[in-house]
Amino acid sequence: MARPTIGIWIVGARGSVATTVMTGLIALQRGLVEGTGLVSELPHFAHLQLRRWPEFLVGGHDIRNTPLIETAEGLAGDQRALPPSLVQACRRDLLRWEKNIRPGTLYHVGDRIASLAAGPSKRLHELPSKALARIQNDLREFQKRHKLAHLIVVNLASTEPPVDEQALPRRWSDLEKLLTSETCPLAASSLYAIAALDLGWPYINFTPSSGSSPRAIQELAELRQTCHAGCDGKTGETLLKSVLAPMMAQRNLEVMSWVGHNIFGNLDGKVLDSPENKASKIRTKDQLLGHILGYSPQTLVSIEYIQSLGEWKTAWDHIHFRGFLGTPMTLQFVWQGCDSLLAAPLVLDLVRLVQRARENSEQGVLPYLASFFKSPLGVRDQAMSSQFEMLLDWARHVPMERSR
Amino acid sequence: MARPTIGIWIVGARGSVATTVMTGLIALQRGLVEGTGLVSELPHFAHLQLRRWPEFLVGGHDIRNTPLIETAEGLAGDQRALPPSLVQACRRDLLRWEKNIRPGTLYHVGDRIASLAAGPSKRLHELPSKALARIQNDLREFQKRHKLAHLIVVNLASTEPPVDEQALPRRWSDLEKLLTSETCPLAASSLYAIAALDLGWPYINFTPSSGSSPRAIQELAELRQTCHAGCDGKTGETLLKSVLAPMMAQRNLEVMSWVGHNIFGNLDGKVLDSPENKASKIRTKDQLLGHILGYSPQTLVSIEYIQSLGEWKTAWDHIHFRGFLGTPMTLQFVWQGCDSLLAAPLVLDLVRLVQRARENSEQGVLPYLASFFKSPLGVRDQAMSSQFEMLLDWARHVPMERSR
Amino acid sequence: MARPTIGIWIVGARGSVATTVMTGLIALQRGLVEGTGLVSELPHFAHLQLRRWPEFLVGGHDIRNTPLIETAEGLAGDQRALPPSLVQACRRDLLRWEKNIRPGTLYHVGDRIASLAAGPSKRLHELPSKALARIQNDLREFQKRHKLAHLIVVNLASTEPPVDEQALPRRWSDLEKLLTSETCPLAASSLYAIAALDLGWPYINFTPSSGSSPRAIQELAELRQTCHAGCDGKTGETLLKSVLAPMMAQRNLEVMSWVGHNIFGNLDGKVLDSPENKASKIRTKDQLLGHILGYSPQTLVSIEYIQSLGEWKTAWDHIHFRGFLGTPMTLQFVWQGCDSLLAAPLVLDLVRLVQRARENSEQGVLPYLASFFKSPLGVRDQAMSSQFEMLLDWARHVPMERSR
Amino acid sequence: MARPTIGIWIVGARGSVATTVMTGLIALQRGLVEGTGLVSELPHFAHLQLRRWPEFLVGGHDIRNTPLIETAEGLAGDQRALPPSLVQACRRDLLRWEKNIRPGTLYHVGDRIASLAAGPSKRLHELPSKALARIQNDLREFQKRHKLAHLIVVNLASTEPPVDEQALPRRWSDLEKLLTSETCPLAASSLYAIAALDLGWPYINFTPSSGSSPRAIQELAELRQTCHAGCDGKTGETLLKSVLAPMMAQRNLEVMSWVGHNIFGNLDGKVLDSPENKASKIRTKDQLLGHILGYSPQTLVSIEYIQSLGEWKTAWDHIHFRGFLGTPMTLQFVWQGCDSLLAAPLVLDLVRLVQRARENSEQGVLPYLASFFKSPLGVRDQAMSSQFEMLLDWARHVPMERSR
Repeated sequence: MARPTIGIWIVGARGSVATTVMTGLIALQRGLVEGTGLVSELPHFAHLQLRRWPEFLVGGHDIRNTPLIETAEGLAGDQRALPPSLVQACRRDLLRWEKNIRPGTLYHVGDRIASLAAGPSKRLHELPSKALARIQNDLREFQKRHKLAHLIVVNLASTEPPVDEQALPRRWSDLEKLLTSETCPLAASSLYAIAALDLGWPYINFTPSSGSSPRAIQELAELRQTCHAGCDGKTGETLLKSVLAPMMAQRNLEVMSWVGHNIFGNLDGKVLDSPENKASKIRTKDQLLGHILGYSPQTLVSIEYIQSLGEWKTAWDHIHFRGFLGTPMTLQFVWQGCDSLLAAPLVLDLVRLVQRARENSEQGVLPYLASFFKSPLGVRDQAMSSQFEMLLDWARHVPMERSR
Repeated sequence: MARPTIGIWIVGARGSVATTVMTGLIALQRGLVEGTGLVSELPHFAHLQLRRWPEFLVGGHDIRNTPLIETAEGLAGDQRALPPSLVQACRRDLLRWEKNIRPGTLYHVGDRIASLAAGPSKRLHELPSKALARIQNDLREFQKRHKLAHLIVVNLASTEPPVDEQALPRRWSDLEKLLTSETCPLAASSLYAIAALDLGWPYINFTPSSGSSPRAIQELAELRQTCHAGCDGKTGETLLKSVLAPMMAQRNLEVMSWVGHNIFGNLDGKVLDSPENKASKIRTKDQLLGHILGYSPQTLVSIEYIQSLGEWKTAWDHIHFRGFLGTPMTLQFVWQGCDSLLAAPLVLDLVRLVQRARENSEQGVLPYLASFFKSPLGVRDQAMSSQFEMLLDWARHVPMERSR
Repeated sequence: MARPTIGIWIVGARGSVATTVMTGLIALQRGLVEGTGLVSELPHFAHLQLRRWPEFLVGGHDIRNTPLIETAEGLAGDQRALPPSLVQACRRDLLRWEKNIRPGTLYHVGDRIASLAAGPSKRLHELPSKALARIQNDLREFQKRHKLAHLIVVNLASTEPPVDEQALPRRWSDLEKLLTSETCPLAASSLYAIAALDLGWPYINFTPSSGSSPRAIQELAELRQTCHAGCDGKTGETLLKSVLAPMMAQRNLEVMSWVGHNIFGNLDGKVLDSPENKASKIRTKDQLLGHILGYSPQTLVSIEYIQSLGEWKTAWDHIHFRGFLGTPMTLQFVWQGCDSLLAAPLVLDLVRLVQRARENSEQGVLPYLASFFKSPLGVRDQAMSSQFEMLLDWARHVPMERSR
Repeated sequence: MARPTIGIWIVGARGSVATTVMTGLIALQRGLVEGTGLVSELPHFAHLQLRRWPEFLVGGHDIRNTPLIETAEGLAGDQRALPPSLVQACRRDLLRWEKNIRPGTLYHVGDRIASLAAGPSKRLHELPSKALARIQNDLREFQKRHKLAHLIVVNLASTEPPVDEQALPRRWSDLEKLLTSETCPLAASSLYAIAALDLGWPYINFTPSSGSSPRAIQELAELRQTCHAGCDGKTGETLLKSVLAPMMAQRNLEVMSWVGHNIFGNLDGKVLDSPENKASKIRTKDQLLGHILGYSPQTLVSIEYIQSLGEWKTAWDHIHFRGFLGTPMTLQFVWQGCDSLLAAPLVLDLVRLVQRARENSEQGVLPYLASFFKSPLGVRDQAMSSQFEMLLDWARHVPMERSR
């Protein structure tokens, strides 16, 4: 097996998605599984010669203490999410990667997330600038120890309460000054984004938290000539919305109301059960209908924590629409998906594609990754098919020479 | 109101879809309803200056006797499909159009359809050539009487048993010879297609019956320099398949099985309840998955006649797929649509768009109408989004001058 | 047609349920419809010789002004709830009954309901004792004018915010004293209950509001030797809970979670959209699982106002349970019922059965009516089958002689 | 652990249900699981002092060769039905019980089942009398070897094609004579029933096959003073029908149509995919609606083999009913149950309860076991609640002294 040369640094490294990313990556590295669920394994991207799985190594931050193997075994046991035999086969590597995880920061993560903290994170009360320095130190130390070319930082941590981005300075030089203040309004996700981008390394925001979205942080990416993408992985109900709503539009059917109820029981669900964290999530799940339809039907999106469901996110959507001569009709769907297993392959895809963008010296937001996100940075088109077309189009035109 | 100049000639003119087409067209002509459900009313097509509703007049063939107004009142009453007040408002015109309906042919429609015949059709036992002459006579008589520029013929009759198209001659000159034989294997739908195309008038096949699909009839369209489109209107479950299956493909999710159960209770349902007629329908509903996915999952499509449902076609689809690391997940949908109200606006759209093609002197199959059909003639791509893109692309490039 | 001798006095007489009760009763009186949906028309009750439909006349209170015929036509039009022809056939009687409606009281109905007030009710700010006197005056005036033997009062008004019944005095003599105080904590529904019972007339609470539930008001019923029943008609989702939960218990299947989402768009839905009113409703929808199962699974009940649905209440329930060897399984149901058409026949049934109880000189709570209610007064058993068995048992044993 | 004294002899011992029965029984004997899903563990039956789990030992017949442990590991692996750790814990006992399985007979099992035969069964072509002698020999040998008081025989084999029971002689003395003929119309399930009953041992038919249903075999049970019960375990969709249909009846709602589509992918599903075997099953699933409702709505029941679902039987039921004033409404449910895990505990319950009946010297059909069966022998009442009441009633009155 080739020596890994690229680090994947996961914020929220002990969560279900992160654990599934790692278990899946190990399984791919060892040839134990096929590429089902991985967009980057589709034939359309074969000519891109994306980095192979053994070239990646994982480390990360987390505010909790639970060992990776414990999370993995939970996912394989009661949750019925991972195949038990696979977890056993990956056990040794998981124990090894465990050592690459460092204490995360609790700066502005909200009370719900803060209450989950365990171990060293719990005791940390630091200025943003202090947190930033510590994070960058962890990143560099990981790079150096494993002789990695560079890292790609991915945010998989639980959703933070919303930040008022309009109130932030729009220039990096102005935002930077706030970092030394106790009243700096940025949340943890943005500190990690700054840490990565400032070192010239790509940042991927797979959550609805603020991350690299603020204008000033986007400028930082450009200043440091690196790239980033986000926000909020489009894994289930919203993915369906982004294919069904265009169909309604194409047929000139008038959506009168669209109700979506989501129930699930993993830690993300528990965090979202707190109203302030939920607000961030619902905003991103709800906005795309207006974009696609060109008008705003009555919508309702709920996300509720139902413990017994564990990883099995179940969504019921009820779409009430009007057809010819005003006749009301109904489409309902029930989605029963395993949350972490839907998210994890997209994370691996994003890492590979962002890596390819880096090799192509791309900078700033990568808009052609829109199909992966509920709220794609820099893209207004929310229809899955045209977003995917953007990705294919990029793949068709990306030059073959690369700077590594 | 402008005098109509274009005839819409409907085969199966007394059926639910045809009655809804007429009621809807009258309502549009009188400004009683808006364009909901009509694709041709989308802003993308505004610049095409499609013919306005008052420019159309309807006539047709049917093998049954039931008055239009009776069917319309049934749709407004127990069926809860049409608004009762609308039917009343359209009553006078429906009685007038009633006079434009002529007896259809029973040639090779199958026993189930034949058993529905009433009135003059019942007594007709004619050679194909005889039927053809009679049909063309009806068409010309309608044109002359109403001083119409030309007709567009649309097949809305119940599904016929399948015809073995491979066994037919591939040249028109050879097929034509068979028309005088009692063993001519063509079915009624193809006779209507020949009647229209031979007169240089367009033909639209909104059903899975053979219609203009045989190679030799396609050649006839080219010889007479006219155009045609088909087959089988994509109204409900299959429409959903054509947006959901591409999503599965784009995410590299492996569809293991796709089960679709359809229940409904109108006359079409009764005809499809006969195994030989059902065979035609299921073939067209079932084929597109393989095209889109690139492999063939286990599929099951059932169509069952449940009388109490009337027009309200209900489909339950159960899609069992495998995600990352092989984890099985499920998507189910329930579609509760009013069959005739989904089909009727597409018929009106097709007539307007085919008319525009004629004004543009287009000949042969019109492939950019694929998004309207379950089995689009001349197009292999079954994904709704790319089919719709073809239509937009045509609309963007169609020249503005026109031959009327 | 026989002259009516019994008055049905409906609180909330202009609402959808009340309008449907009246339209249905008129239709039954005129022999326009059959007994579908009426429990009291089942053969089990034939020997009871329940009062026939023409023996009833309707009047009532409401705080709004909308004419009955307007509500009825709305239910027949866009709502697709009542057959339009039926409403036309009942039109004249509805206009006549319109005159029997008097302004209701706004005392402690909550801000949401108060905001709906129109006409005289809007201007009323009265002490409970004053409201009570006015209500009783209306009741007696109706009785006298139509020469009725007596009235049965039914509460169909929108759900009020919850009242803390524990804080009320438990004796009627103590509660009565509070009625002259501006701080009397009773809500309107209880004032109507007191008005009826105090006159010796039965009271039926078809809503989750307080009504006759307070201990002191129950004592009043006994003091005046009359009877009452409640609370909260069991029409849809809760009806299903009361047959499905016993099945789970009988099979020793462990319900881990039971999620129920209800969406609908009539006025009741709008009122329930206010958190304080919703609280009353959810409490009564949610409690029965614990009673039936003997333990409390995680439950979630939501009721949301989705305007486009109108009367068509749609409930999605997701029941997650554990079977043998702990294997998790799922039952989901979707209920699409027309709210007023489910409630109205039960109201008519209750009136007839309560009338029969009165003829049998029964006093206090009538526990054998439990199967009609979500929170049956005086009965803990929540299983539909045993509740229905109680009703059959009463019917089998009720004496045939009667005091009228 | 007590020495077992009662043998459970399973026909179809290598199937999924049987394997789950054995794994579950072992797990109960070893205290590894709780009683979830076991009716006989409900508090209502505690006073009956039913036999404890360690008192039972399992043997059986099968026509296939697949080792139990292989089936069990399949159920724990891809099927996600049994917990993998539990199968490991039961491994040694399963290997031991493996030795108690003998080759079954193929007499009149239908071509589909016959095609599954492997090992010695494949080579057997025997007269009924010969098969019977061999079966009885196997039973007695098992009893003797393990010093068991007696056996209880349970049929869990795949569904046979229907037998015309009306054409059979009604007296045992007449039926017995047919056993030596090559044209004896009985199927295998009845030969096993005769084998057991003739030895004075109880027989339970958990399938829709003929078993002990023929009148003459029922007489045999009485002649030998033993008891029997059947047919066809009520595990999923039909269980729901038997609670939902009574609700419709109690509310006088008119069921217009009831459509039920069942999909699953285990061996039973494969056998049922053959039309002749499916006929038996559908008959028993479909009949109960007429019994409960008192009229026959249009019904449709389909059972289809969808391989990817394995043990996870999914049923979609669409119930179209009419309420007050004729308004049509809809109830749909989706049942996602693990077939073998729903059936297995009922088998264990039946064995314990039949054993108790035997200790109580009961003879002939045991009607109070009706709630366990789709087509209960000797009982017309199909409502779950009254069937369960019969069981409770028996339990309340069964005498405490017992003959062992």
